[in-house]
Formats: sequence, C-alpha cells, structure tokens
Amino acid sequence: MRVELMQGILGDNNAAARDNRALFDEHGILAVDVMGGPGCGKTSILEQVVRELRRRGITSKVIEGDVASDNDARRIEQAGAEAFQINTGGGCHLHAGMVRRALKQMDLQNTHVMFIENVGNLVCPTAFRLGAHFRFVVASPPEGDDKPQKYPVAFRDAEGIILNKIDLLGHLPFDAERFWELCTELNSSAPQFSVSSTTGEGIEGLCDWLLERRSKRQA
Amino acid sequence: MRVELMQGILGDNNAAARDNRALFDEHGILAVDVMGGPGCGKTSILEQVVRELRRRGITSKVIEGDVASDNDARRIEQAGAEAFQINTGGGCHLHAGMVRRALKQMDLQNTHVMFIENVGNLVCPTAFRLGAHFRFVVASPPEGDDKPQKYPVAFRDAEGIILNKIDLLGHLPFDAERFWELCTELNSSAPQFSVSSTTGEGIEGLCDWLLERRSKRQA
Repeated sequence: MRVELMQGILGDNNAAARDNRALFDEHGILAVDVMGGPGCGKTSILEQVVRELRRRGITSKVIEGDVASDNDARRIEQAGAEAFQINTGGGCHLHAGMVRRALKQMDLQNTHVMFIENVGNLVCPTAFRLGAHFRFVVASPPEGDDKPQKYPVAFRDAEGIILNKIDLLGHLPFDAERFWELCTELNSSAPQFSVSSTTGEGIEGLCDWLLERRSKRQA
Repeated sequence: MRVELMQGILGDNNAAARDNRALFDEHGILAVDVMGGPGCGKTSILEQVVRELRRRGITSKVIEGDVASDNDARRIEQAGAEAFQINTGGGCHLHAGMVRRALKQMDLQNTHVMFIENVGNLVCPTAFRLGAHFRFVVASPPEGDDKPQKYPVAFRDAEGIILNKIDLLGHLPFDAERFWELCTELNSSAPQFSVSSTTGEGIEGLCDWLLERRSKRQA
C-alpha cells in the first residue's frame, strides 16, 4: 500500500511537471531548478545571476521555495527580479503542483529565464522533478568535500553542479580537486561551475552557459 | 488515507522511540540526538566532544545516520569512540526503528553518553523523535543568520541550540546577535552554545552541560 501511495504521489507530480514544462516552452522560457543544502548560497547566487542577466537585457524571474518566511523573495526583488514565494508549511521539498499554482499567478510574458529555488535540502527534492529544463545542485566549501559521497542522488541526477563560495577556498579544510573528482565519478555529463556569490567570480561564465542553452532551445 | 498512513508511521516511530528510551535509562546512558543541515559540522563537533569526554574518563558512543557512505563513522572511530553507521539508502531522516536495530547490535555496557547524528537535514528529522533525552540543533555562520526563521520547527522543538564555526564570525556576513534573538523568540528554554569545532572553543562548556544533565538524571 505504501508503494502504491508513493507511485500515486509521484504520478501526480510528474503530470504537473509536464504541464509546467509545456508552459515554459510555450512562453520560450528557459527554466532552471536550483537545489542545495541550507545556506549553500542558492539565493545569493541567484541575486548575482539575476543582476548579471539584467545587465545583458535578459529578464529572469524566481520562484522561491521555503518551509517558512519570505526572506528570499524579498532579497530577489531587491536584486531587481520578480519573485514568487512558496511556503511549504513544513514540507521538505517543492512539488510540481506548487510550482504550477505559482506559474498561474505570475506574468509569463517577457520572461526569458525562470529560476526555481527549492527548499534547502539535499535529499527530498531529488524525487520530485518540477518541469524545469535543468536542475542544478549547489555545494560550498564549509559543507565539506565529501558531500557527493554522502548525498549521491543529488549529484548524480543534476544537469549542472555549482561549487559556491570559492572565495573561502584556502581558509577551510576543503579539497576542491577531490570534490570535483567525486562529482565526475557520479556524473560525468553535468557541467561544473566554480563561483563566488560574494565576489561575483564565475557568475559571468554561468550566465554565458545559461544563455547559450536558451539560444539552442530556441534554434 | 494519507493522514491515517502518516499517523501509523508516527505511531510505529513513537513506540520504537519509547523502547530506545527505556534501553538508555536501563543502562544509565544519556542519549543526545544531533540534527542540522549538511555541513554545519555535526560530525566535527562530535569528534571534539568525544575526545574531551574521553579525557574526563567518560565513554561515549555514536550512531551515525547518513543517506550513504560510512565517512562519518570512520571519523568518529579515529576520534576514539565506537561508532555505528546507519545508511538510510535515500531516506531523509533517521527513524526510531533504525536506532533500535543499531542499539541491539552495540555493546551498551560501560557506555555513559550515546550521540545519534541524524541525516543532514533541517526539515524531515523534526517529526521523528528517536528516544534520546535531548535533541540538539546545529547551525553555522555560512548558512546565514536567518536560518531559525526559515526552519522554525527545527529550532522551536530543540532542547539545545549550537552555533558552530564561531571562528568564522567576522569573516562572513552573519549577525550572531540576530541569530540568537531569533532562536530565543522561537524557543526561550533551549540552552544556547557557541562553539568552534575547528579551534575547540566552547567544547568544554558543552561537555560540562552534558555531564551535569547526566548527573541530574542519575540523582
């Protein structure tokens, strides 16, 4: 019975994810789902990316998923992008139905890129695809270089891996080479980005990659 | 039906938690459950605490909960304490039945303190008590000072709050005063500890508190 129930939940989720994908494609929006542990810097990266894309004339919007509070949506709006806050009220991940309800309330005209920031969690979001074209997983030096070994599904199933806070490398016992080797072992196809949401290092390269993917989808 | 199922799962968990508590009390063991996000330094704190308790002639043991890998159990054993690794195989939290199975395989004689390190996650472990006498939640400056607002249940329901990595204060945009105010708003009864698992600052005070609680329980 438990298995059937789980299949039912995942089936509902996948149907909503397909609706979301259709909505993104209809509006020519590149959608990116961002997951990572609490405090790895998901929102800080998005603040930088949203600003950099805006400098290039690209409009991005952000759906923020949190257990509670609208802190992150307010930060994104201060960075100059429209943000929609979802509070899961205790839930440990977003599901596609939540995103669908958010999308119905957002203006999808003149939107080039939609970011969906998942709840800070390296486990639960893995099973629930949201309809985005790419899922990025974010890690950072304070979390330790063995995170890919400890949360393998998050890294194995990602379509992009970001190591944030590279400005802290050298100040903490974190072996970046080992981290990237573990990532490559699990997932040799995901592009790897090293960025600092504090100094902005690497953000331009990440934006180049996103816009290149967006062009390819529209070609 | 979903509600009934959840009540059934929680009922099973609570029964196993009561068994665990009885086992701890029977052996005069103080049991402490440690939760926190990935990379907040749960294992690093336990390495320090285990060493400090050992210096005082106190034998502690550790049950390590991880999605995958036995990295943490190996670290604890290098610090000089027996460790039992539980791999949840995808599960986002420990439940009391897993701990009960671990306890059955451990030698509980001559054990003064049992630590149970939960899966790195600030959401899912909250609903599943493991039978420990105290649950500690750990946070750290790289995660941001608004974590209590974003994961309120984890902080509200803790019997102790640890701010780790205080050696990084001043190097990161983290307002410790604000962090502790938010903690106090949610939970004015939990003792608050500031420690550094790198320098060892604050570890002695934390051990003093644990041993005091242990004496009180035995009085």
